[in-house]
Amino acid sequence: MAPTADVILDTLDALDPLGELPRTGWLLRGINPCESIAAHSLQVALLVSMLVDACRAEGMIVDGEAALRMALVHDAPEARLGDVPMPVKSPELDAALHVVEERLAAELLPPALHGAWSAAEAGASLEARLVKAADKLQMLHKLSVYERQGRRHPLIDVMWQNPANLRFVDIAPVRRVYETIFARAGRPMPAPR
Amino acid sequence: MAPTADVILDTLDALDPLGELPRTGWLLRGINPCESIAAHSLQVALLVSMLVDACRAEGMIVDGEAALRMALVHDAPEARLGDVPMPVKSPELDAALHVVEERLAAELLPPALHGAWSAAEAGASLEARLVKAADKLQMLHKLSVYERQGRRHPLIDVMWQNPANLRFVDIAPVRRVYETIFARAGRPMPAPR
Amino acid sequence: MAPTADVILDTLDALDPLGELPRTGWLLRGINPCESIAAHSLQVALLVSMLVDACRAEGMIVDGEAALRMALVHDAPEARLGDVPMPVKSPELDAALHVVEERLAAELLPPALHGAWSAAEAGASLEARLVKAADKLQMLHKLSVYERQGRRHPLIDVMWQNPANLRFVDIAPVRRVYETIFARAGRPMPAPR
Amino acid sequence: MAPTADVILDTLDALDPLGELPRTGWLLRGINPCESIAAHSLQVALLVSMLVDACRAEGMIVDGEAALRMALVHDAPEARLGDVPMPVKSPELDAALHVVEERLAAELLPPALHGAWSAAEAGASLEARLVKAADKLQMLHKLSVYERQGRRHPLIDVMWQNPANLRFVDIAPVRRVYETIFARAGRPMPAPR
Amino acid sequence: MAPTADVILDTLDALDPLGELPRTGWLLRGINPCESIAAHSLQVALLVSMLVDACRAEGMIVDGEAALRMALVHDAPEARLGDVPMPVKSPELDAALHVVEERLAAELLPPALHGAWSAAEAGASLEARLVKAADKLQMLHKLSVYERQGRRHPLIDVMWQNPANLRFVDIAPVRRVYETIFARAGRPMPAPR
Amino acid sequence: MAPTADVILDTLDALDPLGELPRTGWLLRGINPCESIAAHSLQVALLVSMLVDACRAEGMIVDGEAALRMALVHDAPEARLGDVPMPVKSPELDAALHVVEERLAAELLPPALHGAWSAAEAGASLEARLVKAADKLQMLHKLSVYERQGRRHPLIDVMWQNPANLRFVDIAPVRRVYETIFARAGRPMPAPR
Repeated sequence: MAPTADVILDTLDALDPLGELPRTGWLLRGINPCESIAAHSLQVALLVSMLVDACRAEGMIVDGEAALRMALVHDAPEARLGDVPMPVKSPELDAALHVVEERLAAELLPPALHGAWSAAEAGASLEARLVKAADKLQMLHKLSVYERQGRRHPLIDVMWQNPANLRFVDIAPVRRVYETIFARAGRPMPAPR
Repeated sequence: MAPTADVILDTLDALDPLGELPRTGWLLRGINPCESIAAHSLQVALLVSMLVDACRAEGMIVDGEAALRMALVHDAPEARLGDVPMPVKSPELDAALHVVEERLAAELLPPALHGAWSAAEAGASLEARLVKAADKLQMLHKLSVYERQGRRHPLIDVMWQNPANLRFVDIAPVRRVYETIFARAGRPMPAPR
Repeated sequence: MAPTADVILDTLDALDPLGELPRTGWLLRGINPCESIAAHSLQVALLVSMLVDACRAEGMIVDGEAALRMALVHDAPEARLGDVPMPVKSPELDAALHVVEERLAAELLPPALHGAWSAAEAGASLEARLVKAADKLQMLHKLSVYERQGRRHPLIDVMWQNPANLRFVDIAPVRRVYETIFARAGRPMPAPR
Repeated sequence: MAPTADVILDTLDALDPLGELPRTGWLLRGINPCESIAAHSLQVALLVSMLVDACRAEGMIVDGEAALRMALVHDAPEARLGDVPMPVKSPELDAALHVVEERLAAELLPPALHGAWSAAEAGASLEARLVKAADKLQMLHKLSVYERQGRRHPLIDVMWQNPANLRFVDIAPVRRVYETIFARAGRPMPAPR
Repeated sequence: MAPTADVILDTLDALDPLGELPRTGWLLRGINPCESIAAHSLQVALLVSMLVDACRAEGMIVDGEAALRMALVHDAPEARLGDVPMPVKSPELDAALHVVEERLAAELLPPALHGAWSAAEAGASLEARLVKAADKLQMLHKLSVYERQGRRHPLIDVMWQNPANLRFVDIAPVRRVYETIFARAGRPMPAPR
Repeated sequence: MAPTADVILDTLDALDPLGELPRTGWLLRGINPCESIAAHSLQVALLVSMLVDACRAEGMIVDGEAALRMALVHDAPEARLGDVPMPVKSPELDAALHVVEERLAAELLPPALHGAWSAAEAGASLEARLVKAADKLQMLHKLSVYERQGRRHPLIDVMWQNPANLRFVDIAPVRRVYETIFARAGRPMPAPR
């Protein structure tokens, strides 16, 4: 079912705060102002488009439209919830957040985009795995951008060492981007969990 | 056990982000820049000091030091977690957040302040109830400040109408402050739940 | 030719400023802080994904992946150039900017995304027309968001009255979104040029 | 005399700017955005609560409620006056500022908090001395936080060397916190004046 | 004596904070972010250049270079002191601030610009009176700009009614600009003191 | 023809955005918040006043009022156009921007200031050459200020090495300021083109 003009505008209204909400993890590291959730999501989508091209060049079949839709909405529920930083999460909190996010995704998004969010969250398809990898790749790349600007913080080393930031390194183009980020930052890449 | 100089400085370090982290609910309503968690906590503590005076004038016995300590740290775990806006919370999310906050409070705070946080969270004592009331009174007062500045938003009416924002109105000085906030804003006060 | 990991990271570096650069037109209207170019681009892409669904529901054939790629990079050269507000542009300035943007797009983007930018700029395909329409639809929608927040400015009326902000209203789903934006804002829709 | 609801809300209104006003000394050192007066005051109050605990552990008698109230309002007049940076002050300016602050404290604060402000300003009691020490301890600690973030400025060395930033080092827990701040920052502690 | 290259750069360094420091009075009225001291000074200088032209057209003899130099440095000491809002000032505070500002002007500025600051502060010459008038005209004009943007605040009416904001209305072009500001804002002009 | 009160206020309105608009080149280098166009223009005018004194000390005849007016308005058209960063400009873009700026200068400025803008742009007189030199001197000095604050960026070296940033080094006081900026920054001065 196609979205009506009213649904389209309600969706834009609902997702509008993504441009104002900060990625909390940077504020916790003294980086203020910092990247918005919208700026993050745009970079994830750009990264996904390039990973799709790299995967196809190696003969993989990828649904590019599906992957890009997943990237665009992968943080959509944060428009109501804000960005909860990863390191504090417990399995129970993750589970409860997932339920709330599922409810918010259903409320905020029209069916087609809701489906894209759910598929990304499930992480089963190649497209979803590319989005989940890009979510972390973008974060580590942004960290390297901040470091090159001269920003320092005691919690920055932890980010480079956390194996939870490595995702789906079994996909060759993903692994190469991880390796290049770590090499350019002069940091050893942790062993994936 | 008294905090050593190292513990005191570790605590300041740990709570430092409260000054940078925004109260997410205002960003969601298009108010940017908005109040920090630190600015909120300071106002809650000031409000508690005045509620303590008002309660004592009516013959209640209040431990003022305990109440102020609770006010100062009532949002301490948000220094790691950020501010999760209330309307999205489910009972399960509330429970999981509580567990994470309890863990963070234990990590970030020395024993005496950790005890203050736990007592505030429990909400059993008169002091804790004053802090929980002040938490909401401050929010509604800040809303009235933003409204007087000409800020408008579709979600603002909902805040004035939500009975969950009324807490411990059975304490007479608390009730009078609620009534005066609503009267000054020209808004009807909802019936407490 | 697929982008290498180095090319992928160079592209992220090159487009990183989109998250910091403001949409200049809002600053000129006293809205500060305002939307970044990245936040705008994300909303354009979301809007395009919904317009694609609406077009397909009416039987049109749309290449969704191509449309989304165009949306993601339609303002990519602004990462070096900043956002030049439309009303000041002359035909000569438009032409000279186009040449510079073409050069920057070639420098900043890998071949596949450069192709997407050029196709969007050309505006010939249905996909490109959806992106150009979404570029203006997003701007008018954001204007309505700012107005609802209580922002006022002498130059705001001009934006609502400028027929240059209406693009490709011959595409039925596009026209319906325009009509709904104007109706919700309580503004008459100007006659398209 | 207990504050009425009207007085309580007038006080919150009056002190509301503390959350927006920057600590001017940081802006002068190129740190922008920087800590607000509210964020500073909250940290001073937290520090005082821990110093109170440390003093009690050494057998000193401290009125914790009084100390916390002093901390909360020690910069209250700055809500009207802004933060005037210390190094520029002359004895005459200090005296004239004190008179204006006394007038503002009387205008902005209800009697009980006005008394707390005056006692803090007088600096005679142990409680007041803890607040005055915490005011400087917080400043030096925040300086160390900014330094760890990679911020540099020609005027920063002066702050570490200024003996006027050492206050009431005769109180043992205060002295230990000073020593630890300097040790962690790798800076020699100046001789108190 | 002409300034050497070292003196010129020391002066730029010394006055650099004017671009970061806010005009405190706006923050106190909930306008955040607000005009910097540098933005204010630039507008005062532009206004002075136009008042000079208007005075000359009426046959007055004005030293335009002197007037512009006074405008550029009239707030120079605030680069160290910050902006102390007018309404809180007492005669004693004004006198003590003047002494400190005189010292800072001598420290921060080379002789020629120090002379310009002193002449502006003295307010004796026509040029100095134009600068002092422009200082207030700019403030009232900026207030009208903020009002047109939809900003509201209880303390705004007071600014329009304060006769201390009217300066040197005996100079005909100055008086006409005051009258036009009030007329455009739809406010009655108070009687000069 | 002298500007009327209406023209004076229209000019202030028109140039008001200079205080909000960022110097885009700094944002592209990760410096956020950064200097506004107004803060830049004020520093250029201050620098020009000191260069005028230095030139006069060497026997040159300079029209100080004319030079200061040129400095004040040299970026006036950017109030509508924003700041387009230099490195992206082509000869064609420069030419087209010049035409648009000429039109905007005529629209935004009264005749006397429009004349000052045109003379500055022409760059023929000594006064105009001082303004054009000061425009670049201020930029390099600000770069050194940001570097001393610990900011780092891959594109910073390029700025120090670009001979296009050296202007009118044949004027002795200008050359000495350039040499001192480079010497203080510990950078070799490039050979002028």
